[in-house]
Amino acid sequence: MPFRHVVMFQWADDVDENHVDGVRAALDNLPEQISQVRQYVHGSDVGVAEGNFDYVLVADFDTVDDWRTYRDHPAHQLFIAEHIVGKIKQRAAVQYQTPGTRDAMDVAQDQLAKYLAELDDDIS
Amino acid sequence: MPFRHVVMFQWADDVDENHVDGVRAALDNLPEQISQVRQYVHGSDVGVAEGNFDYVLVADFDTVDDWRTYRDHPAHQLFIAEHIVGKIKQRAAVQYQTPGTRDAMDVAQDQLAKYLAELDDDIS
Repeated sequence: MPFRHVVMFQWADDVDENHVDGVRAALDNLPEQISQVRQYVHGSDVGVAEGNFDYVLVADFDTVDDWRTYRDHPAHQLFIAEHIVGKIKQRAAVQYQTPGTRDAMDVAQDQLAKYLAELDDDIS
Repeated sequence: MPFRHVVMFQWADDVDENHVDGVRAALDNLPEQISQVRQYVHGSDVGVAEGNFDYVLVADFDTVDDWRTYRDHPAHQLFIAEHIVGKIKQRAAVQYQTPGTRDAMDVAQDQLAKYLAELDDDIS
């Protein structure tokens, strides 16, 4: 059953727009380094409601174990150490099971990717 | 540009599983009543991490105005009055812009081109 990790941050008072740009760029790079990530949609709060958190990430995985692999992955741990630790006032997170929201085309793509990877292994 | 609303709740101490089941059922019914909702994926935290919130909703809309229509819709307001007010300890929310979902066939073709290019690189 698909598994979703949602996390929100409130930045510390001394965090500036420059730091947030760095967070955004670093997050954009993570899925390429961690193959278990299926979808990764993050961004800054747009400021249309009072009392919100500042940043959110919604990350989708096939299974809870894929999420654990992501959580412990060195690239993710480095991201946390460089961009999150000491930079936030508050964090809020939920992990939950999601219905199979992926459509047939997504599944077909995954199968194609898998097939090509196997073909790749056979050639090399 | 697509617009996403993410909200998390921590239930008050006297909220039981029965109430949460009612929340789940009521949320399942909202998209049918509010035509602006594009995707609506909600659920309880599964308990694999410490210090999490209890429930999360990720709701997708085409525009910020569609989200405003949803926010103010009588069915949504009734849901809040019946299931949320007085029932939560804490709330965390972010609204953000999400990249446009591209046509599935375009994505599949791009992916295929990428895989074939990589395969090509590996062979040469």
